[in-house]
Amino acid sequence: MKTWAVEVRISFKPSVFDPQGHAVENAAHSLGYKAVEGFRVGKYMTFQVYAASEEEAKQLADEVCDKVLCNPVMETYSFSLTEALREEDLA
Amino acid sequence: MKTWAVEVRISFKPSVFDPQGHAVENAAHSLGYKAVEGFRVGKYMTFQVYAASEEEAKQLADEVCDKVLCNPVMETYSFSLTEALREEDLA
Repeated sequence: MKTWAVEVRISFKPSVFDPQGHAVENAAHSLGYKAVEGFRVGKYMTFQVYAASEEEAKQLADEVCDKVLCNPVMETYSFSLTEALREEDLA
Repeated sequence: MKTWAVEVRISFKPSVFDPQGHAVENAAHSLGYKAVEGFRVGKYMTFQVYAASEEEAKQLADEVCDKVLCNPVMETYSFSLTEALREEDLA
């Protein structure tokens, strides 16, 4: 069994209004940062998956994203997966 | 002036307790996903920067992350920057 590190990025679909993004944009502009715009705020999650193969880890990570982490009505997700070093590999 | 797309990942520092991460982990386990753990929940933001050079865009993006988006006491951030295609490039 290997350990895999998963990074998930969850964003609102483009058609969904993002009040938090607007608030951040107003804050940036009021602090003088005029050359920035189009802020969209989503969720960034990391977790570990225990699986025998990369394929199995990807499948489990995708299912967790789809069934637990993301609201498919309003959000989209993408994730990346890397094999995590175990303690004994570092020794 | 060019347009640059910025992707920001903001996470709690490892020493900071993450109640949201624990809640997500409990949800995943209760839904039967036992081979996953160590959930950490942070923010994922995207925005555009208008700058003449990549260097200038990076500097501005870093400053916005540091001064507006991230709470340096409890959070760390990382960002990636890519040149965004303009409409006329797509025509």
